[in-house]
Amino acid sequence: MKVRTGVVSLLCVTLLGAAGQAGAEEPIQPIAPVKEINLAKAELGKKLFFDPRLSKSGFISCNSCHNLSMGGSDNIKTSIGHNWQKGPINAPTVLNSSLNFVQFWDGRAETLKDQAGGPIANPGEMAFTHEMAEDVLTSIPGYVTEFKQVFGDDTINIDRATDAIAEFEKTLVTPNSRFDQWLLGDKKALNEDELAGYKLFKDSGCISCHYGEAMGGTSFQKMGVMEEYKSKSPTEGRKAVTGKDEDRFAFKVPTLRNVELTYPYFHDGEAETLTEAVDVMGRLQLGAEFTKEQNAQIVAFLKTLTGDQPSFTLPILPPSTEKTPQPKPFE
Amino acid sequence: MKVRTGVVSLLCVTLLGAAGQAGAEEPIQPIAPVKEINLAKAELGKKLFFDPRLSKSGFISCNSCHNLSMGGSDNIKTSIGHNWQKGPINAPTVLNSSLNFVQFWDGRAETLKDQAGGPIANPGEMAFTHEMAEDVLTSIPGYVTEFKQVFGDDTINIDRATDAIAEFEKTLVTPNSRFDQWLLGDKKALNEDELAGYKLFKDSGCISCHYGEAMGGTSFQKMGVMEEYKSKSPTEGRKAVTGKDEDRFAFKVPTLRNVELTYPYFHDGEAETLTEAVDVMGRLQLGAEFTKEQNAQIVAFLKTLTGDQPSFTLPILPPSTEKTPQPKPFE
Repeated sequence: MKVRTGVVSLLCVTLLGAAGQAGAEEPIQPIAPVKEINLAKAELGKKLFFDPRLSKSGFISCNSCHNLSMGGSDNIKTSIGHNWQKGPINAPTVLNSSLNFVQFWDGRAETLKDQAGGPIANPGEMAFTHEMAEDVLTSIPGYVTEFKQVFGDDTINIDRATDAIAEFEKTLVTPNSRFDQWLLGDKKALNEDELAGYKLFKDSGCISCHYGEAMGGTSFQKMGVMEEYKSKSPTEGRKAVTGKDEDRFAFKVPTLRNVELTYPYFHDGEAETLTEAVDVMGRLQLGAEFTKEQNAQIVAFLKTLTGDQPSFTLPILPPSTEKTPQPKPFE
Repeated sequence: MKVRTGVVSLLCVTLLGAAGQAGAEEPIQPIAPVKEINLAKAELGKKLFFDPRLSKSGFISCNSCHNLSMGGSDNIKTSIGHNWQKGPINAPTVLNSSLNFVQFWDGRAETLKDQAGGPIANPGEMAFTHEMAEDVLTSIPGYVTEFKQVFGDDTINIDRATDAIAEFEKTLVTPNSRFDQWLLGDKKALNEDELAGYKLFKDSGCISCHYGEAMGGTSFQKMGVMEEYKSKSPTEGRKAVTGKDEDRFAFKVPTLRNVELTYPYFHDGEAETLTEAVDVMGRLQLGAEFTKEQNAQIVAFLKTLTGDQPSFTLPILPPSTEKTPQPKPFE
């Protein structure tokens, strides 16, 4: 491995700083199980998360692109939206998204609740409007009852719907990965290769961005630091939010939790495998060229980050009625 | 209500015959709970049912159009296939489909297993090939292990995959509807309007096609007996299988179980509500014009046919590997 010294020194300081602040021995903390959830609200949010009637077509739900059977992602480069439109960006996993400091790759939403309203009204995604979504929900007696149960009165609006979706999403944390078992004291939970991968992950500087409970989701970083990243994607990242040139190609650092499940990688989904992603990240972000063995060790470590996947009963959605606006899949 | 006498007489004979054969007082039998299931095979089949990697795009799974959150249907007129193609026909519910005498509206598959292979390879639906599906499954270690566990050796092929999907589908029966509770002796399970609706359902002749455990799925019938059915759909039904002119517009009688959840109705999905469906069926199939009150009573009865929906944990799919063929959503 070749590493440019200046960068590593800087990274090490960052790393030590982060570890010191946390007061822990390791710069990564185990995923904490869910606490303080409003269960009734989360149950309502689960239904809404799975409900394609929040889209114009009646075919696309939150779960279509953040598929909870598949690591909370869609496992395709960029998502498919209304009328099979090709999305501009790779769908980030919804797993552990409550740990992100902001939402979306460019951080344009501050909260999970704000995020949840985005795709519903995005013409390239669910292609609906918040007003239409409210009309649909208000027309369904099963939802009317449940909203009242959860919120205490008859009002159904997008604010409450996204609040409920966000509450459900808070439950989507994935504790108990093998790495977390190791962090919690089970020193047999990782094998030698995996531990060597973790040491490389820290020593080479990956940790300087992928630290904390979620191993990411805590900062924006430029894609392509030591070398330019050549992408076919027109997406400019954080610049779209701030308008600042220095934010061009800055993206929220994605979580590495469950990364074995959330392929393909990067904002454009161009890295199909972990091997490729580790290689590109090493070269472009750290100026490091990992040997084949080192790459394999880091990949082995990354595969220990798969936690307990959300386990719940598939929700049964309350049926539409004669008053429910019809979906318009082919308009 | 006006009914043409000749038709009703014929229907009554059919009805009595069916009831007599069953040796029961009623021409409809309660849905029996699932028996004799190979659980490991059904669990594998559940994963496959939810796995969009059985489609070319990596986006469409069996559950996309037979959504088990929504009565095993997609609740749109005709389904959306690969590249947002508009399907030619309304997706029939997968619920209680094991009770159908044949599968598809035109009966072109004899078994659930045969049916399951159809959409995977249909260019207008999942747009994959059976060979590609086999390649995908064979590349996924989680599936390799599970197929071996279920079938006893290393062979993974479409035959076994569809066998497993069919085994899962056998579990998708919906016992315990209020009507079944009534059939089983709880005479308070239905109210007066619902009972009046059931009486009308029998007396006017609906029962002559919608009888038995599933209340349908036991015969082909011409759509439009007393009056021609005018459809925008070019689908000709059973004729596509037999080539016979007399089978033009003959379709498998759909089950009425869970009919409140499986809107819109008919092979072309043109009836948006139960009210409309009952009205059209009465006029076209029976020559009966139900009054508004009669229609409402029949609809009230039909809403008692919603049984216990399948209740299971959302499956977590085994991840792809570097060997897994990439999905091709935009080709």
